[in-house]
Amino acid sequence: MQFLTEYLWFNTERQREYINITHKVQELVSQSGIKEGMVLVSAMHITAGVYVNDAESGLIADIDKWLDELAPFNINYNHHRTGETNGDAHLKSLLIGHEVIVPVTNGKLDFGPWQQIYYAEFDGQRKKRLIVKVMGE
Amino acid sequence: MQFLTEYLWFNTERQREYINITHKVQELVSQSGIKEGMVLVSAMHITAGVYVNDAESGLIADIDKWLDELAPFNINYNHHRTGETNGDAHLKSLLIGHEVIVPVTNGKLDFGPWQQIYYAEFDGQRKKRLIVKVMGE
Amino acid sequence: MQFLTEYLWFNTERQREYINITHKVQELVSQSGIKEGMVLVSAMHITAGVYVNDAESGLIADIDKWLDELAPFNINYNHHRTGETNGDAHLKSLLIGHEVIVPVTNGKLDFGPWQQIYYAEFDGQRKKRLIVKVMGE
Repeated sequence: MQFLTEYLWFNTERQREYINITHKVQELVSQSGIKEGMVLVSAMHITAGVYVNDAESGLIADIDKWLDELAPFNINYNHHRTGETNGDAHLKSLLIGHEVIVPVTNGKLDFGPWQQIYYAEFDGQRKKRLIVKVMGE
Repeated sequence: MQFLTEYLWFNTERQREYINITHKVQELVSQSGIKEGMVLVSAMHITAGVYVNDAESGLIADIDKWLDELAPFNINYNHHRTGETNGDAHLKSLLIGHEVIVPVTNGKLDFGPWQQIYYAEFDGQRKKRLIVKVMGE
Repeated sequence: MQFLTEYLWFNTERQREYINITHKVQELVSQSGIKEGMVLVSAMHITAGVYVNDAESGLIADIDKWLDELAPFNINYNHHRTGETNGDAHLKSLLIGHEVIVPVTNGKLDFGPWQQIYYAEFDGQRKKRLIVKVMGE
């Protein structure tokens, strides 16, 4: 069994941002030399997410609006008694999920035609990290 | 390490449909000869999902209604400027998730008594695909 | 490839409860002797979840309230025609997810500073089970 572990860093300009990392993940799969297996892509922070969906700017705006409706900013979250103000970012992370596992076949992300991997930042404007772990043979 | 990769095709009669694929996934695990490991079951489209829950028709109706309340059809999604009308199907996919990893022990899906794997179609009536990848030894 | 499979049992005092299992999962990773790979942590019941987020009591209260707003108790769920009354617990499980995959590097859960693994019980006060499967080398 072979492994490649890499950490990607983000420091977004805006508080919420959606970054297509498909190409970077495919590069790491290629670099690993692994032909069969999977790649785990997982946010290392609890106010960020990782998801698979379409690279279409209108849809990304819809996703952002939808997440903010279902997990809105609210001054009264109990979590804010700690001095934090990012309760909504934690809930957004739970809603979209913080990790995906992508199958690798013949050295490629085994995706359908429209599938893309996104890093979803919900509390940005500071350095944050994501792990990519390719596993297989 | 051994692998079995198979693609399941669906072409549902209705726009939204929930299909129990547990038996088919177990068949592929048996066919792989893998006794220890896991099976990744992942939709290859961005308007479909995969989840684990109960095979009870009332609950499936509840899940469908719930998804449609939290991620409703809306003519005004930005995504619809592309000519698409399936913005809600993308959000439903993000809500329920597009993949599961099921543990395999002694050649069987290592499930509790009520766990079943479902393919959830949110924009059907056309050919769509799912990947099953068994990995282990 | 090496494997360690273990089952954790829970019997919560309250109907809904959130239990930090990070330390126990790390113990099992250490016990497995696996240095590189992953650990799958998955509820074996369809009215429980597993998620990764912060060990902060205010946030846990916020998560519980949020789940109960988005997937509320409702006497009229179709599922209740079976005699069950836990339709909301199924939906809460689908919302938060029933499993996580955590990367293992150098024999440790490869987590950011605040990431913790939680078992989320939505229909407790009875014996329920979770599987931990460590896989790697």
